[in-house]
Amino acid sequence: MLASKLYCPTLREIPAEAEVVSHQYMLKAGMIRKNAGGVYTFLPLGRRVVRKIEAIVREEMDATGAQEIMMPIMQPAEIWHESGRWSAYGAEMFKLQDRHGNDYCLGPTHEELITTLVRNELRSYKQMPLTLYQMQNKYRDEIRPRFGLMRSREFVMKDAYSFDMDEEGLHQSYQVMYDAYSRIFDRCGLNYKPVLADSGQIGGSRTHEFMALADAGEADVVSCSACDFAANVEKAVPCTLDMPEESLKELEIIETPDCSTIDDLTNFLEIPIEKTIKAVAFDVDGKLALCMIRGDHEVNDVAVQNFVGGNTIEPAAPELLAAHGLEAGYMSPIHAADPDDTFIIIVDPTAMNVYNGVTGANKHGYHYKNVTPSRDFKNITVATIRLMMESDVCPVCGAPIHMVHGIEVGQVFELGTKYSTSLQATFLDQNGKAKPYVMGCYGIGVTRTMAAAIEQYHDEKGIIWPVNIAPYEVAILPVSTKDCAMMDIAGTLYAELQAAGIETLLDDRNERAGVKFNDADLIGYPIRITIGKKSAAEETVEIKLRRTDEVEVVSIKQAAGRVRDIINSLRENNK
Amino acid sequence: MLASKLYCPTLREIPAEAEVVSHQYMLKAGMIRKNAGGVYTFLPLGRRVVRKIEAIVREEMDATGAQEIMMPIMQPAEIWHESGRWSAYGAEMFKLQDRHGNDYCLGPTHEELITTLVRNELRSYKQMPLTLYQMQNKYRDEIRPRFGLMRSREFVMKDAYSFDMDEEGLHQSYQVMYDAYSRIFDRCGLNYKPVLADSGQIGGSRTHEFMALADAGEADVVSCSACDFAANVEKAVPCTLDMPEESLKELEIIETPDCSTIDDLTNFLEIPIEKTIKAVAFDVDGKLALCMIRGDHEVNDVAVQNFVGGNTIEPAAPELLAAHGLEAGYMSPIHAADPDDTFIIIVDPTAMNVYNGVTGANKHGYHYKNVTPSRDFKNITVATIRLMMESDVCPVCGAPIHMVHGIEVGQVFELGTKYSTSLQATFLDQNGKAKPYVMGCYGIGVTRTMAAAIEQYHDEKGIIWPVNIAPYEVAILPVSTKDCAMMDIAGTLYAELQAAGIETLLDDRNERAGVKFNDADLIGYPIRITIGKKSAAEETVEIKLRRTDEVEVVSIKQAAGRVRDIINSLRENNK
Repeated sequence: MLASKLYCPTLREIPAEAEVVSHQYMLKAGMIRKNAGGVYTFLPLGRRVVRKIEAIVREEMDATGAQEIMMPIMQPAEIWHESGRWSAYGAEMFKLQDRHGNDYCLGPTHEELITTLVRNELRSYKQMPLTLYQMQNKYRDEIRPRFGLMRSREFVMKDAYSFDMDEEGLHQSYQVMYDAYSRIFDRCGLNYKPVLADSGQIGGSRTHEFMALADAGEADVVSCSACDFAANVEKAVPCTLDMPEESLKELEIIETPDCSTIDDLTNFLEIPIEKTIKAVAFDVDGKLALCMIRGDHEVNDVAVQNFVGGNTIEPAAPELLAAHGLEAGYMSPIHAADPDDTFIIIVDPTAMNVYNGVTGANKHGYHYKNVTPSRDFKNITVATIRLMMESDVCPVCGAPIHMVHGIEVGQVFELGTKYSTSLQATFLDQNGKAKPYVMGCYGIGVTRTMAAAIEQYHDEKGIIWPVNIAPYEVAILPVSTKDCAMMDIAGTLYAELQAAGIETLLDDRNERAGVKFNDADLIGYPIRITIGKKSAAEETVEIKLRRTDEVEVVSIKQAAGRVRDIINSLRENNK
Repeated sequence: MLASKLYCPTLREIPAEAEVVSHQYMLKAGMIRKNAGGVYTFLPLGRRVVRKIEAIVREEMDATGAQEIMMPIMQPAEIWHESGRWSAYGAEMFKLQDRHGNDYCLGPTHEELITTLVRNELRSYKQMPLTLYQMQNKYRDEIRPRFGLMRSREFVMKDAYSFDMDEEGLHQSYQVMYDAYSRIFDRCGLNYKPVLADSGQIGGSRTHEFMALADAGEADVVSCSACDFAANVEKAVPCTLDMPEESLKELEIIETPDCSTIDDLTNFLEIPIEKTIKAVAFDVDGKLALCMIRGDHEVNDVAVQNFVGGNTIEPAAPELLAAHGLEAGYMSPIHAADPDDTFIIIVDPTAMNVYNGVTGANKHGYHYKNVTPSRDFKNITVATIRLMMESDVCPVCGAPIHMVHGIEVGQVFELGTKYSTSLQATFLDQNGKAKPYVMGCYGIGVTRTMAAAIEQYHDEKGIIWPVNIAPYEVAILPVSTKDCAMMDIAGTLYAELQAAGIETLLDDRNERAGVKFNDADLIGYPIRITIGKKSAAEETVEIKLRRTDEVEVVSIKQAAGRVRDIINSLRENNK
C-alpha cells in the first residue's frame, strides 16, 4: 500500500471524549470514527486489524470442526417470548417493528435463534456433537456506551453454540472451545487469563471469562499467587473471616448525629471499622433485599442477585425501604419489618462473626452498639455476599491473592438444557427417547480484542501491534520523496517485500521525515525500515522494531531476507 | 469435510412458499432456513457459497485500489434529515429508537453515512480519487418479501463509494468499477448483461444495472439484436410510432355500456386496439398525473415519476380522480378539470398520432369516437411514457429488439454532487476553492448473486454450481461405507485432494448409494467421484461432471491429477 493513497486521516489532538488509550489512539491514528454514541466506522487500517482477528478466530474455529453459519441480525420477537427473555433482557435490547407492526430485536446474542433453527432438524444423537458459529455485528443498548470499542453498542462478535447428547459431551465440547480460545488469544498476542465467572443473564452452570489484563479493564479479577485459582471478583467466594471472641455486652441504642456513612460513624465513635456492620439494600425484580456486611467490605451484587433470583438488580428506592420499616443511612435488621415474599434479609457470614459491634437502629440519627448478630439479628438468611478484597486469601489454597483489572474478550458457557427445555428442542437418544439438547455457548468480542491489544501494547508515541494483527507488518520510510536514489531503493524493497507476501506500506507522501516517523510510531507497524542519505551511499537500510526500539543496519540486498526472519520470529512468539 | 459431520438438513419436500427454483433448491439442499419473512439463516453450505462470492468481490475491489472499511448498520437519523431522505425513503426503511429516544435506521444504503464520514477529513483534491467499500448486511422492509434471497429484507451487499474532484474523474472511477463488476460476475460464472438503468431513489445521472439473465428475474431487459444497446425496460425510451394519415371526422359521444376496459371496448365497437387511447392515473406525492397511451401499450410508471418528480408513485385513489372531474373506467382529458399544480395530463407521442380514435368521455358508460388528440385534447403535456414492447425497434439503430427477464445483481451510479451538496461536503481544489465532492456509488447484491447463479444453473435434480462459488469442488461417494476396500480408496483420495488444496467432501454416511447420489446432485458439487465395487477390483474410479453429465473412468493413481486438471479447466472458463 502507498501511504499517499491510504485513507488514514490522523489527528493532531485527541478528542476530549476519549478516556482510555485504545480509544484515543484508534481515533488519532485514523482507524475508527464515531457515528453515534457507541457506534463506529472502521476506516481502512482499523478494518484490516479486525479482519486479521476474524481470520485467526475463523481458522481456529474451523480447526475444531465447528461449522460457520450466518444467522440474521434481525430476530423475530416470538422466539424470545417463547424462551421468556423478551422482557427479561430489558432496555439493553434494541427493539423495532416492521411495516406490518411485527416485533423484532437486533440480536444481542443468538441462543433463541440457533435453538429454534436446529430444533426439528437436529433429530438424532448420531448428529452430535455439533458446534455451529458465526461472526457478525451484535447489538446492546448500553446505558452509557464508553471507552470506544470496549463498551460500544454495535460490535463484532464471534458466537458459537454446541449441541451434545449429555453432560459429558458438553464438557468435551466446552474444553475444545476453551482450548481454541486460548490459541486465538495467544495468536493475537494478548496477555490474558481464563477466569471462573458468573453466568448471569445467559444462564447455565460452568463458565469462564477470558480476561485481557489491563488497567483500563472494567472487570476485577482475583488470582492466586500460588495455585491456579483465578476468577472474576463477582464469582469469587471469599473465605469467612473470624474475629477474636469477646464476652457479649448488652445491646444499647446511642445517638449518632450526622453519621449516615461508615466513615462518619467510625470517626464519631472512635472504633475500628471492623466493628461496624453496614447495610445495603437492593430491589431485585421488585423484591427488597437488605444486605448486611462488615463495614470494611463491599457487597457483591451479582452474588445477591444469584441468591435472590431475578432478572434485574437496582439500588432500592426510598419508598421501598420505608414500606419495610427501614430508615436510609441507619438500616439494620433490628426493628425492620418481618421478611416475607417481598423482603429478605441477607447477612454475610463474616458480618455474623462480629462481637459487640455497631449497626443502624432504623431511626434517623441513631445506631445500636454492642450488637452481636447471632444474638440480635432475627429472621435472617446467612450467605456470602461480600466481594473478595486484596487482603483476602485464596479460597482454594489459602495463599495470598492478587487483584488485577481485566477486559473480558471472550467467554465460554455450559448452558445445559436451559434453552432446549424452554424452547422444547429435543433429539432422540440411543433408546429412541426424546431429550433436550445439552448446549454450550461461546463468545469472542472481536472488536473488543482489538481494543484490548492496544491497551496492553502501546507507549507514549502510539500503538505497538502484535505482528499477527498489525494492519501492515512493515512500513518503509524514505526520508525524502524528492531524492530519486532513496525512492528507487524504497520502491525496489517495497516490490521485494510484497512479492515475499509481506504486508508492506510505503510512505511515499511528500511530508517531512518527522511527520512520517511520528505516524509510523502512532499507527504502530511492527517493523520500520528507514531509507536515508546513507542508504544510497552505503547501500544499507535501517530496520527498527517498534516493540523493542532495537535498530539494526543491514545491506539493501539482505534487507528483505532479514525482515522475513524478524517477522517469522515475532510470529513464533506471538509478539 | 466428512458428510457425517456436516450440518446439512436436506428436505424431501419443497416448502409450498418457495416459488422460484433458487429458493426451492436452497431450502431443499439445506443451505438456508427462513427465520421470518425475508429473513434467513445461511447454514454451512450456504455460508460457504456466500463467503466465496465475498472473496471474489473483495479481491476484485482490492485490485482496483478501493479500500475496505466497515460502517455501522445502525445509522443516526440526523444525517438522513440533513440529506432530506429520512421521510423520502418511506416505509421501506427499518427505523428504531434507542433507550434515550434517539432515532436510527438500519442502513438500506450508505450515501449519507459515507459522505458525513469523510467530510472535514477528505479535504484536498490531492487525496482523490478515493474509493471506499464495505461488505455487510443491508435492510429493506419490502412490502412483500419473496423469492427467497432474490427479494429479502436482510441481505448481504457490497457497497462502494467514489470521490472525485470533477466529472471526468468520476467517469474514470465509474469505468473502473464497471470493469471490476464485469470481472466479478464473470468469475461467479454468471450469464449477465450490463444495461442502462434508471437512477431512481438513489439519484444521480448515469447508471448501469448488471442483470443476470433468468426467467425468474423481476426486471425486464430490452436488448438490441444488432447493436450493443441494452436497457432496463423502465429506462428504455421507445420510438414514436406513426399511423396512416386519415381525414378527420367529427367528434361524437357514443353509449358504450359495460366497456370500462379496452378489451370490452374493442369487442363492443369492433375496432382495432390501435384506434383506442387509454388512460391510467397516478398519485405522485399527492399530485394527480393522468397518463394517456395507445390502447395496446402499457405505462412506464418510472418514466412518469421522473417526468413529474416526487418520491412515491401510486395508483390514484377514486376521490382524487373525482376531485379533478375524472370518471374511473372512462377517463380522458376531455371534460377533465384544468391542469394546475395538483394535476397534470401527459400524453404519449404515439397516442398523439392516433386519427379518429376512441377515448373515454368522463361519463359512466360513454366514450368519444373520432378523437384526434392534436385537435381534441387541451392543456396537455406530451412525453414518452409508454413501456417498450417486443414489437418495438432499437431506439439507437432501428434493428429488432429482444425482451428478456433479468435479476439485478449489481448497479453502478454516477451520483455527481447530489449528496455532497445536500450534506455540504467539500474539498479544496487546485486553486484553493471549496467544491463539493463528485461522487459515484456502486452496489453488488452478494446473496442475490448466489440465488441468480442457481436460477441460471440447475436441472430437475438440483443445483449445478459454477466451480468458483461451489460450496465444495468435489464430492467423493463410496457406494458402501461397510466395504473396507472402498473406504480405504475413498480415504486415500480424500487426503490426496485435500493436500492439493481441493475443497472436498467425503460422503461417509451410512446411507444407500441412491440417497448419496441424489444429495450430491441436489447440492450441486461440480465434480463427483464414485467409488464402487470395480474400484477395488480394477483400481479405477468414476469421475462425473455435474454440468455436462460427462463420465470418465480413471485409474486411482491418476484420479487426483485428473480432478485438478478438470477444476483448472472449469476455473479458466468460469464454468
